[in-house]
Amino acid sequence: KKIFNITVLPGDGIGPEVVEQAVRVLETISASSADFELKLSSHDFGGCAIDSTGQALPDSTLKACQGADAILMGSVGGPKWSSGKVRPEQGLLTLRKTLGLYANIRPASFASSSLVDISPLKPEIAAGTNIIVVRELIGGLYFGERKEQDVGPNPDTAWDTMVYSVEEVKRITRVAAKIALAANPPLPITSVDKANVLASSRLWRKVVTETLKEEYPQLKLEHQLVDSAAMIIVANPKKLNGVILTENMFGDILSDETSVLVGSLGLLPSASLAGAPKTDFAPGEKPPSGLYEPIHGSAPDIAGQGIANPIGTILSAAMLLRYSLGLEKHAQAVEAAVRKALDSKANGGLGLRSRDLGGASTSREIGDSIRPAAAGP
Amino acid sequence: KKIFNITVLPGDGIGPEVVEQAVRVLETISASSADFELKLSSHDFGGCAIDSTGQALPDSTLKACQGADAILMGSVGGPKWSSGKVRPEQGLLTLRKTLGLYANIRPASFASSSLVDISPLKPEIAAGTNIIVVRELIGGLYFGERKEQDVGPNPDTAWDTMVYSVEEVKRITRVAAKIALAANPPLPITSVDKANVLASSRLWRKVVTETLKEEYPQLKLEHQLVDSAAMIIVANPKKLNGVILTENMFGDILSDETSVLVGSLGLLPSASLAGAPKTDFAPGEKPPSGLYEPIHGSAPDIAGQGIANPIGTILSAAMLLRYSLGLEKHAQAVEAAVRKALDSKANGGLGLRSRDLGGASTSREIGDSIRPAAAGP
Ligand SMILES: CC(C)[C@H](C(=O)O)[C@@H](O)C(=O)O
Ligand SMILES: CC(C)[C@H](C(=O)O)[C@@H](O)C(=O)O
Repeated sequence: KKIFNITVLPGDGIGPEVVEQAVRVLETISASSADFELKLSSHDFGGCAIDSTGQALPDSTLKACQGADAILMGSVGGPKWSSGKVRPEQGLLTLRKTLGLYANIRPASFASSSLVDISPLKPEIAAGTNIIVVRELIGGLYFGERKEQDVGPNPDTAWDTMVYSVEEVKRITRVAAKIALAANPPLPITSVDKANVLASSRLWRKVVTETLKEEYPQLKLEHQLVDSAAMIIVANPKKLNGVILTENMFGDILSDETSVLVGSLGLLPSASLAGAPKTDFAPGEKPPSGLYEPIHGSAPDIAGQGIANPIGTILSAAMLLRYSLGLEKHAQAVEAAVRKALDSKANGGLGLRSRDLGGASTSREIGDSIRPAAAGP
Repeated sequence: KKIFNITVLPGDGIGPEVVEQAVRVLETISASSADFELKLSSHDFGGCAIDSTGQALPDSTLKACQGADAILMGSVGGPKWSSGKVRPEQGLLTLRKTLGLYANIRPASFASSSLVDISPLKPEIAAGTNIIVVRELIGGLYFGERKEQDVGPNPDTAWDTMVYSVEEVKRITRVAAKIALAANPPLPITSVDKANVLASSRLWRKVVTETLKEEYPQLKLEHQLVDSAAMIIVANPKKLNGVILTENMFGDILSDETSVLVGSLGLLPSASLAGAPKTDFAPGEKPPSGLYEPIHGSAPDIAGQGIANPIGTILSAAMLLRYSLGLEKHAQAVEAAVRKALDSKANGGLGLRSRDLGGASTSREIGDSIRPAAAGP
């Protein structure tokens, strides 16, 4: 029996509650398989780790992440730690950087067509939105040199550096290309930058253009300025259907903006990978490190009540099965089970709705409904 | 008779067409006043200036701007110049910097309640949106030190610097405060940054907080991270009703995102000022330099057809009357005339709709309908 080690980081706020449901789905899959076993082990990370060890990313947690086949995370942070000297976000940034997770992949589409009504957009504008944001995750303003206020010869200024190298842009462009090519027909790519102002964006645009031209000439590429992209996402999101490829800071903003179009944040998964996603591995081939997490935050206001929507985390677990373990069929079974839970009864579904979707289903009820169907693909 | 000199920069694409209508409104006002005269003079700027002089901002244009009581601009840029060595945007950035126009003010609300249906958002989410974005305009990533690719010892990297000083943040905070206080009751302020990652944002948050606490303790202040703000603007914009105060790059993105909520971009004005806006001046007092422009671009696809919506430019002219000339009553008359042109017939308006609003009114028809009413307040 093949053994997969999965490090679980429940984190803060609603993190532990939503992760619990995803873990139960994974355990069910493991128990019902004759071919593999999923070994899950939980570790402190984020605010809870600060409380217990003084560090957001304790060494033991980092080691567990480095040794794992994949990482499943809930969410970190909360007002309790937001003004402290050590902050939960620093742990997340360090983890991303240390594991080289340069490719953040955030698909945004309606998990069930019955959810179109939940979008803040008019149904005719929202329906059919299908965007995958590919965000560079360990470069740009987040990791460039910076200077804080009250430091150095100019204590009254503070600065950050948005820096990119050719190599950094090339590798994330290749990830976007591979994601575009995984669809049939291949998805168009929209690269987003601010090349009319920024030097780093001019490098970005040039390298994206050349890399795709040389290595993937069959792919359709357009460029958008980040301000225009922010408008189009609201005014006519389908115009950007396909892959949005962008740098770290712009990706942070645009991926969050995109995610609210397709209903609740509680529904959306993400993957952060140290390479291009693959779904089939040669025997013995090690896939790139991967961290999977729902895109929502720790939502301290509803934590502890068992009413958080676990679907974003469960769909993150599906991405984990697909990209880190090569278990495509199991990933699809989970996704089908999620669709069934959400689809309206008229369409053969269960019509479950957690509170963020205007209903009263608990986290556990939703987990329970997905578990059995996810088991046997 | 008091004389006001207004420098007009029609610019490229639809710029000249929309500016023409605003100029006619201003000329009508001038002709019907016994107290003042508006002297308008047009100058080349942007792409057309590159074509005629090789420079986006010719010296003569800059001088005309420096000597004027106010500047009215159309829009600059277009595919024709986007890959050239000299680019129209550089002219705009140089003009902003040279005149010290650090405060960009972009109100976004429905010019007429009959326009709620044009929003991409559901009417119940869109209706009542009333946000004024105050964007710092001559600092941050736009004007920090930068390095292009192929230059220096690391030819394979390019970088830009996001830099802010205490003084820069203080002065834009004061502008936001004055705008908030101009309303009754005063508007709440939401300051947007990325303080959980960026040093410049930590300085920003600290200075905004301290400045308001010391100088305007009566104002309500909240902080939002830029990624959350990008979500809230779409999901629940009224939550941000009031003033959004933010730095240059974030303001570029969020103000464009906000503007699509309230219908067509063609409707919205902006002001860029070298100080806090005031509406009443002591005799002989010189208001800060001001550049007024619609927020839309040069729209080369519809240029020359006379169908562009001139209302954003006409409302920019209203802001010019208010903030640079102290002619509040005339500004209000223009705004009332615009409302009347847009209001549905059932509500006593003319129900005019240019093509961006789904109708067939020409730029000139709209200008004609606004002109007479604007004349005599
Ligand atoms: C918590 C924060 C540092 C993080 C980021 O900005 O990358 C988050 O917003 C995200 O998008 O994962
Ligand atoms: C043309 C461009 C340089 C400019 C900016 O980014 O400031 C424009 O997008 C704006 O918002 O006025």
